Amino acid sequence: MGELILTTFDWVPEPPRGFVRDIRVRWALEEAGLPYRVETVEFGDHKAAPTAHQPFGQVPWLTDGDLSVFESGAILLHLGERSPPLLPADEPARGEAIEWLFAALNSVEAASLPWSLCIFTGDTESAAYRMFDDFLKVHRLKHLEPVLAAREWLAGTFSVADIMMADVLRLVDRFGGLADFPACRAYVTRATTRPAFRKAHADQLAHFAAGDEARR
Amino acid sequence: MGELILTTFDWVPEPPRGFVRDIRVRWALEEAGLPYRVETVEFGDHKAAPTAHQPFGQVPWLTDGDLSVFESGAILLHLGERSPPLLPADEPARGEAIEWLFAALNSVEAASLPWSLCIFTGDTESAAYRMFDDFLKVHRLKHLEPVLAAREWLAGTFSVADIMMADVLRLVDRFGGLADFPACRAYVTRATTRPAFRKAHADQLAHFAAGDEARR
Repeated sequence: MGELILTTFDWVPEPPRGFVRDIRVRWALEEAGLPYRVETVEFGDHKAAPTAHQPFGQVPWLTDGDLSVFESGAILLHLGERSPPLLPADEPARGEAIEWLFAALNSVEAASLPWSLCIFTGDTESAAYRMFDDFLKVHRLKHLEPVLAAREWLAGTFSVADIMMADVLRLVDRFGGLADFPACRAYVTRATTRPAFRKAHADQLAHFAAGDEARR
Repeated sequence: MGELILTTFDWVPEPPRGFVRDIRVRWALEEAGLPYRVETVEFGDHKAAPTAHQPFGQVPWLTDGDLSVFESGAILLHLGERSPPLLPADEPARGEAIEWLFAALNSVEAASLPWSLCIFTGDTESAAYRMFDDFLKVHRLKHLEPVLAAREWLAGTFSVADIMMADVLRLVDRFGGLADFPACRAYVTRATTRPAFRKAHADQLAHFAAGDEARR
């Protein structure tokens, strides 16, 4: 592995602090015990200028020597392929971790993102909100609940799938969406009490607090 | 590779035909020239009963000998790792294909799914629809347009990233969302005129037509 550099925003306003997606990468790097440093791009209108590193103007991206990777899912997979504590090397556990990594994004977050955007904009009386609330709770969390009640981690041992799923569910929990799903809540607690998460979370908060200082 | 079995619904109503996600897997299998057979689960209330194969009660899933994989993204990656025409073996092209596979799902489809659900339910006057329309067009397609104007395929050569991105954009195009993005439209045309897509598409339509016969 080359030198690892994580790029995130120089600063964000208060509400997203603790939830900016660089936390997924910080968390994985802490779990793997990999050294890295942080570089920044300027935050403006919720995004940076699109570049070859990130065509949509978002963060994070990771450079690993000559390689540059965007999309939090692709970054976790990249790190997992190079670090056994993040991704089991053998089938079927490896495949299970990868399918749950995709499921966290494309089954659960695909439902929780529009749901949380409606809540964030105060639009909880609309037909659209009710559709997304049903999509998230009836079609996703109701099925995830027995899975998480029956196992500690999605692929048997802790993996990048749990970093992704717990981070997705953590935002749902922030908006009260896990009230009827105790196994999902217990899973979020299991994941976020790990020392690597706590370190990553504290580091993100400290990073943006330093951004406040720099802006003064 | 073991025997490949793709599982999809036995039948679906007219509107989603040609767009059921098993087409992503059929298309990849045709591109790779891999033999496979199709099994079915009963369609009811837009999903099947959740099983160990698919915890959310969706399709498709793929079994490869003793392995069972769900999530269309994970299935494409599984096939790509076993078939060089679907995923370049060497960096940086391999990593580019994987990050764009995630981007198709978690950047573009994350925006196009709520947008298309609003249109599908006739909810195009709401604040939620306007938010998702802006999310899709201003924050995603506007940035994807110059990328697709500058290259034939996302990772240099055709890969699973193009199967996923073209399938996601194809549904946006069906609802008129690519009108202002000519490079995105040209890309969809490039991808869907490939013989492997045409075969996959015809096979899906024939499969569900056979389901009509069986229901009579």
